Amino acid sequence: MSSRVYIENLADYVGREATISGWLYNKRSSGKIRFLILRDGTGVLQGVIVKQNVSEKVFNAFDTLTQESSLRISGTVRKDDRAPGGYEMDVKDVEIIALANDYPITPKEHGVEFLMDRRHLWLRSQRQHAILRVRHEIIRSIREFFDGRGFLLMDAPIFTPAACEGTSTLFETEYFDLGKAYLTQSGQLYGEAGAMAFGKVYVFGPTFRAEKSKTRRHLTEFWMVEPEVAFNDLNDDMDLAEEFLEHIVGKVLKNRAAELKTLERNTKFLENVKKPLPRITYDEAVEILRKKGTSFERGNDFGGTDETVISEEFDRPVMVHRYPAKVKAFYMKRDPKNEDLALAVDVLAPEGHGEIIGGSQREDDYDVLLKRLHEHNLPESAFDWYLDLRRFGSVPHSGFGLGVERTVSWICGLDHVRETIPFPRMIYRLTP
Amino acid sequence: MSSRVYIENLADYVGREATISGWLYNKRSSGKIRFLILRDGTGVLQGVIVKQNVSEKVFNAFDTLTQESSLRISGTVRKDDRAPGGYEMDVKDVEIIALANDYPITPKEHGVEFLMDRRHLWLRSQRQHAILRVRHEIIRSIREFFDGRGFLLMDAPIFTPAACEGTSTLFETEYFDLGKAYLTQSGQLYGEAGAMAFGKVYVFGPTFRAEKSKTRRHLTEFWMVEPEVAFNDLNDDMDLAEEFLEHIVGKVLKNRAAELKTLERNTKFLENVKKPLPRITYDEAVEILRKKGTSFERGNDFGGTDETVISEEFDRPVMVHRYPAKVKAFYMKRDPKNEDLALAVDVLAPEGHGEIIGGSQREDDYDVLLKRLHEHNLPESAFDWYLDLRRFGSVPHSGFGLGVERTVSWICGLDHVRETIPFPRMIYRLTP
Repeated sequence: MSSRVYIENLADYVGREATISGWLYNKRSSGKIRFLILRDGTGVLQGVIVKQNVSEKVFNAFDTLTQESSLRISGTVRKDDRAPGGYEMDVKDVEIIALANDYPITPKEHGVEFLMDRRHLWLRSQRQHAILRVRHEIIRSIREFFDGRGFLLMDAPIFTPAACEGTSTLFETEYFDLGKAYLTQSGQLYGEAGAMAFGKVYVFGPTFRAEKSKTRRHLTEFWMVEPEVAFNDLNDDMDLAEEFLEHIVGKVLKNRAAELKTLERNTKFLENVKKPLPRITYDEAVEILRKKGTSFERGNDFGGTDETVISEEFDRPVMVHRYPAKVKAFYMKRDPKNEDLALAVDVLAPEGHGEIIGGSQREDDYDVLLKRLHEHNLPESAFDWYLDLRRFGSVPHSGFGLGVERTVSWICGLDHVRETIPFPRMIYRLTP
Repeated sequence: MSSRVYIENLADYVGREATISGWLYNKRSSGKIRFLILRDGTGVLQGVIVKQNVSEKVFNAFDTLTQESSLRISGTVRKDDRAPGGYEMDVKDVEIIALANDYPITPKEHGVEFLMDRRHLWLRSQRQHAILRVRHEIIRSIREFFDGRGFLLMDAPIFTPAACEGTSTLFETEYFDLGKAYLTQSGQLYGEAGAMAFGKVYVFGPTFRAEKSKTRRHLTEFWMVEPEVAFNDLNDDMDLAEEFLEHIVGKVLKNRAAELKTLERNTKFLENVKKPLPRITYDEAVEILRKKGTSFERGNDFGGTDETVISEEFDRPVMVHRYPAKVKAFYMKRDPKNEDLALAVDVLAPEGHGEIIGGSQREDDYDVLLKRLHEHNLPESAFDWYLDLRRFGSVPHSGFGLGVERTVSWICGLDHVRETIPFPRMIYRLTP
């Protein structure tokens, strides 16, 4: 397969013959010249067919070609900055592989549900290409960041025997003779076991929430990366988070500039993602809401609208730390200076994209953690192994989770997460 | 956190002071000298405490230390090739963080079930470190291979509305008002949609099989990578598979030599994993079984024992292609030279590790594929979107799936897949 020529490699073929296999994206005629735009998944190439240079068969083949028909074109490659993709081919031969009839996605406007029903075809459009290439770059750079810093990849189990963040939003399945298994909502607890074994780990995989939320920020399955580091406190956690965000945003700006341009993304705020990022306390965030005249009541967790209002004060992501413990998870350590506060941090993306990171220092004291389990009415037996991490060589440790789809949505500047994953799953969508 | 010193970076600290945080792996006394072995997840370090050089408090602290207690040690770093890890520290200070009492995994032998029940602690042992570092390198090099060759990462959905490889081995969950969702057994069909959009893609994620198999090769959740390439035929598919295996085995041999040594892995056969790999037909494989006197009946699929017998004829992975179509999946294209054969390939690992790759050229003709769906009693409506890929610009295409855990098992030379993933899930195990 190494001998096949892809459009992305045409720079090596200027002035030479090549054969490109792909699909018809568009075509037009102008007198005795025919133009076709071929896409092969790696780019688009304009082919030029001049009547006197080709056989009648080839010239006529052009007329039968329909959108998304598959074909091969052969000819000489030229550099041409005016052409889409920057190269043009003087076509000598056209081989039709299969004609497509009535391809449903035409250049006219379609509704989102119409397109989502045809997601397997919609993926062929330029905009979806751009988004999914950015997604790939984000995932690649996430792994590059942790791999390059000695973190061990720790694939956490999908089937879990108990809930980590509450029982109301769990998908469940029968598991042989062992009763029910629940689909993981977070790999964090397993990541903590990993941090005690390997010092620094990252969990990276799909997670599931059976939330009955129809918002533009919710999917029922979404990918999350969760680093966990032994001996890190909350400040170290925030240091790691800002270094991490700088890395991935920087890589996308550098390696996916063309795609961001296709998406007409204003990158001004993305270029600001450099450490240090602003850090404010929950109380300072509440003060912002108060000044802006919202009716937010101190002590509650922030809703999506609150997050938007807070983030509008900043031209880059902002870290909000030290939330009221009662709105946060059982495993978070309390602030020794104020037991009502959890050593938690949320990172809010600018431009109203909401929370992209949630993290905390974890409770590392056996007795306190046991008390928290009881306060949250969680079954002690299911967490016995987790308590072991405090029985045997407990250390301060911290971590966070970043949601991939919300991050893609923010970096691409989308107003809904549904286009950030090849086949989104939502409360009302399980197909295709 | 960048200021913290990890054992893996001690080369930069020779002759200098450093503080290492970690857990006690072992200790011993010899007259007025005390030795402790500290692990921090990135390596082990021998600390030497000489009575006259430290305070009485520090010297006494040593005596209270138990296995897996967490602590910090400070002192001067020396290179010492005799020491485990290659470095030694002249310890000046010891700070105990938390003492561990009665750590259950002692240097004596434990049964596998005992250890699996304590998997969250067992991960701290050297052997498990070695295996999971090899796993990480395999996953890293898989992504490196495809990312470097222009494949787009295509995360396929976990929730699917229908079965891909038969209905008897599916995990199911209630999905809001949409009835049941099934956990994916393979992302291939979605990968095919991706190949038509992006030319070459890879799906990489967890997959699920509710098989009631208690064999040493089965997990209920396991990770699989599935490349899919438009315009590739079966030969291209085999070319890709052998180039791929050469890449990942080569990377593990180069980057994880120390871990393979810890595992006492004889790497002779691994060093043979270079293209071209031997390619034999199903019929030739049957001939091997016949010659070796097995009772295998031509026309059946190979069982685990058959695979072992076949693979014993080779000192490297062997590709077996062109299986009887009736033992293979509905989506495989038939051999135009013999309609009874599927254009399928399985790659069998040497030394009895069985099938690690299964692949095929896919049926690309609409009418034939529809006929196959009916022959396999699969609901046409559930595959309507998949048929669309043959309606609109169908092209020849091929792909394969590689099971990560079986690959780790083979490369590490393990006799069971259960140690190849941090928290294995089997028919009789859902915890911890």
